[in-house]
Amino acid sequence: MATGTSTPSGPEASRPGHFLLTGEGWPYLLVPLIPVAVVLELLHAAPTWVFLASALGVIPTAALMGRATEELSARSGPGIGGFLNVTFGNAPELIIALFALGAGLHEVVKASLVGSILGNILLVLGVSMLAGGLRRDRQDFEPRAASAQALLLLLATVALIMPAIFELVQGPGLPGPRDQAVSFPADVVSLSIGVALVLLLSYAAALVFSLKTHAHLFNPAHDEGDHGGEPWTVRRSVVMLAIAGVAVGVMSEILVGSITEASEAIGLSPFFVGVIVVAIVGNAAEHWVAVYFALRNKIDLSINIAVGSAAQIALFVAPVLVLASFVVGPFPMALVFNGFEIGAIFLAVFIAQEVTQRGDSSWFEGLQLLAVYAVLALTFFFV
Amino acid sequence: MATGTSTPSGPEASRPGHFLLTGEGWPYLLVPLIPVAVVLELLHAAPTWVFLASALGVIPTAALMGRATEELSARSGPGIGGFLNVTFGNAPELIIALFALGAGLHEVVKASLVGSILGNILLVLGVSMLAGGLRRDRQDFEPRAASAQALLLLLATVALIMPAIFELVQGPGLPGPRDQAVSFPADVVSLSIGVALVLLLSYAAALVFSLKTHAHLFNPAHDEGDHGGEPWTVRRSVVMLAIAGVAVGVMSEILVGSITEASEAIGLSPFFVGVIVVAIVGNAAEHWVAVYFALRNKIDLSINIAVGSAAQIALFVAPVLVLASFVVGPFPMALVFNGFEIGAIFLAVFIAQEVTQRGDSSWFEGLQLLAVYAVLALTFFFV
Amino acid sequence: MATGTSTPSGPEASRPGHFLLTGEGWPYLLVPLIPVAVVLELLHAAPTWVFLASALGVIPTAALMGRATEELSARSGPGIGGFLNVTFGNAPELIIALFALGAGLHEVVKASLVGSILGNILLVLGVSMLAGGLRRDRQDFEPRAASAQALLLLLATVALIMPAIFELVQGPGLPGPRDQAVSFPADVVSLSIGVALVLLLSYAAALVFSLKTHAHLFNPAHDEGDHGGEPWTVRRSVVMLAIAGVAVGVMSEILVGSITEASEAIGLSPFFVGVIVVAIVGNAAEHWVAVYFALRNKIDLSINIAVGSAAQIALFVAPVLVLASFVVGPFPMALVFNGFEIGAIFLAVFIAQEVTQRGDSSWFEGLQLLAVYAVLALTFFFV
Repeated sequence: MATGTSTPSGPEASRPGHFLLTGEGWPYLLVPLIPVAVVLELLHAAPTWVFLASALGVIPTAALMGRATEELSARSGPGIGGFLNVTFGNAPELIIALFALGAGLHEVVKASLVGSILGNILLVLGVSMLAGGLRRDRQDFEPRAASAQALLLLLATVALIMPAIFELVQGPGLPGPRDQAVSFPADVVSLSIGVALVLLLSYAAALVFSLKTHAHLFNPAHDEGDHGGEPWTVRRSVVMLAIAGVAVGVMSEILVGSITEASEAIGLSPFFVGVIVVAIVGNAAEHWVAVYFALRNKIDLSINIAVGSAAQIALFVAPVLVLASFVVGPFPMALVFNGFEIGAIFLAVFIAQEVTQRGDSSWFEGLQLLAVYAVLALTFFFV
Repeated sequence: MATGTSTPSGPEASRPGHFLLTGEGWPYLLVPLIPVAVVLELLHAAPTWVFLASALGVIPTAALMGRATEELSARSGPGIGGFLNVTFGNAPELIIALFALGAGLHEVVKASLVGSILGNILLVLGVSMLAGGLRRDRQDFEPRAASAQALLLLLATVALIMPAIFELVQGPGLPGPRDQAVSFPADVVSLSIGVALVLLLSYAAALVFSLKTHAHLFNPAHDEGDHGGEPWTVRRSVVMLAIAGVAVGVMSEILVGSITEASEAIGLSPFFVGVIVVAIVGNAAEHWVAVYFALRNKIDLSINIAVGSAAQIALFVAPVLVLASFVVGPFPMALVFNGFEIGAIFLAVFIAQEVTQRGDSSWFEGLQLLAVYAVLALTFFFV
Repeated sequence: MATGTSTPSGPEASRPGHFLLTGEGWPYLLVPLIPVAVVLELLHAAPTWVFLASALGVIPTAALMGRATEELSARSGPGIGGFLNVTFGNAPELIIALFALGAGLHEVVKASLVGSILGNILLVLGVSMLAGGLRRDRQDFEPRAASAQALLLLLATVALIMPAIFELVQGPGLPGPRDQAVSFPADVVSLSIGVALVLLLSYAAALVFSLKTHAHLFNPAHDEGDHGGEPWTVRRSVVMLAIAGVAVGVMSEILVGSITEASEAIGLSPFFVGVIVVAIVGNAAEHWVAVYFALRNKIDLSINIAVGSAAQIALFVAPVLVLASFVVGPFPMALVFNGFEIGAIFLAVFIAQEVTQRGDSSWFEGLQLLAVYAVLALTFFFV
């Protein structure tokens, strides 16, 4: 669903000195880590340092990409704007995953997809509801919009579980969390392609729903003032998008290249790094924006960002990666997740469903989402 | 739950020439396939043709049975009328299943039960919500009635899952989707009987709820004009019911006799044929009626038909078949489903629960239900 | 969550002769069984009789403990009162479990925890909704309070499922329902401790929510007249609490000591006795109180007692027992449940979620909860 992520800036954005401390500005404090990561990589420094620098270096490139996408879509009307948001909204995650796919790290790809979904509906939504509800009795939102997006996640859950059931009943079983890549039989690969196409079609339908037939549900109090600052020209937006794209690509290649060795050095499994660390890094910019809106009592927008972004990962990024795996990497990637991923996704989506059903939230719902995230992260830690 | 399936007819029904093209009339276009099926069977024609002719031949016999049941129950007051609806409402499915039970095809029986539930809550409800919502922002329904029926499905899900958990933990495991019939140990059979009795009692309670104590929830805008046409006499209704019963029986016997060979010839597994093809055929008449009401903005009735019919299969037809299997067929049928069936039922009921919880629907909910059905059908296709 | 269990008494309580027949009084009819149990134990009577006498003897001691806790908390303001309710509210269950822990019966401990949760959200809530809805069209309750508590159960479900998934994927598998105690590897034990701490923190947050920031949701019509009778002094409350504590302890030790042999003699598995019989006995007092309120159309309080008590077991008693197992008993108890327990808890919590989501109930919802309980109990019976 098109997460109309209007980056928060407000009047402060016009005062340049403070920009780096605003909601929009803080990620750029991490810009120096981009050259640091490149230098460390070229010097063949210890993988842990390369990993850390490139992980932090991803954050400003992702933020720039988000800003450029948004400026561009603001100039191009809801239709094309929505399409741009879709294409570039989760571009950093997609680029990281494509590099991992190329390196044959199928299980890291799937772990980061799952981690991104979990991070959005548990961590981002949890912090948003917690922070936004702290000094309020309740925050209300349009349940129809939230439920429609949560329903997409349910469909995605079915799509992620059925191939696994297929493998459990008919095939050699699920991949292990310590595998690097598993080559599945042809029928599971065919099933994965079919499921990927259904997901992409549903996603297209979701765009029609949220941008056209039911757009009014998704813009309950669309406050144009939020965009703030001076708008970018189309030219500037395109240039920035290109720069951001290249930078995300470079950081992602370095990040992915260091995951295996770095996780060994730190003593964490590549699975944990993929599902928790990479996911937090890849979504850092959105995290902040969602919390920013929650604090300003626009929990509708926070939910739209968190749940919408999770849906985008599940229904757009995941199937695109399945299709891309026929061209990129050693062999096609089947949509078969491991036991931890299936359990975690199912339970998280279940909870997202309950939390978005009734149309109001409090700090307590937020805290519960975070507690669930903590339990999942703990479990992954011991893998 | 008594699905008060008032067949749609309207003023057109009085003009005989158009009857075959009305909502009520179209199934009778398939009447010629009844004798065709009989002739092909007697000539020992290719199983594929026998299967196709008898599958299409079931549709008009099921439609006639539905009409006769309804006319009879309209004459006999809500109490006995409800009872008649219960007994004959899903009679075609019951008759097909009894023949399959007699042929020892336990796994086909269970697949067609599951397929009927999935078909109703995903396909029928999906098409209804999609078609009904196409030119409307939303369609509202009474959430209390819908939730009560969806709750029945949840109970059914528990009843279908627990014996499987029993087998997984204590017994030799679940049946495979390619098995024909599995003879389970005595304790699972006893457990199945106990569960079947609980389901039947719950179903009786559901009738009291929907026909007596909370009948007002289920007839929100009961429009008598819908029945249209001239009412049948009791005599005519009984005669028609008897004719339909015999015809359904004949078609079912031919259909069941050809399933195994036909599915081999077409290249589909008997599991796929049972869970998708037979289920669509057996519910074709209800499908049309539900969509008809949705188009006329009576989504309440569509939900009543779709979810109520699924509940009827799970809480009435399934336990009756378990009990009948002590008399019909080689050995008792345990209520142990295979991994695909359990996963599919659970996920479908979960989604039905979410979709019926809040009291409004749009085309998007309908499309999501269809996408889930597509993912399930795809998975079953590769079995 | 602090279940503000105001015991029902009303004006009758002032007439001593009738006291034993009131809602508050009936458990004390079982007082004579306390000395009977002690004598039978000392005489080394048949385990079945010892078990029966001590099981029934637990009921009045639990009732006294509940009354004393409540009188004490009524004297001490909402903050400390809530804390007392938490600490002593499920004290009988905790004491029974501690004795079982000491006897090394880890699987009985876990079965009684699960049984207590199931008993509360299916049996207690089911009877309450059924009885309360019998002569009413509907009973309304505050969905925000009910959902918040049900959400706690969802978190608990995640916490109970993830270690099991860990064992299924990485470890030697789940414990069997006939095991007495399984010593799990160190990583699962560490994971259990981590999960236990998350649960305790969430529980603390739930207390803040229900007693402080959102206390108004939990006292919709807090009718002080309900407390009735003459209030106890602090001194009397403390003395009674001490007496009750000792009595519960004695009964529990006798009960736990006789479980294994008695269940053999009766022909039931220790699992069934733990998950059904002990759970019903340990919650008998709360059962009655919840139904009492439902009959008086205060279904809010019934839900608060039933769901709140289940949450208390899952988020307070269970983690405390995990931590206590490092001191009490042969080796640490991991939070890994068997397949039956996981399936049952998950399905029961799912249903509790749906039933508490919308804010109204009828006898039909109650009956469905009972039917689910019946299916679970049936399954456990054949273990």
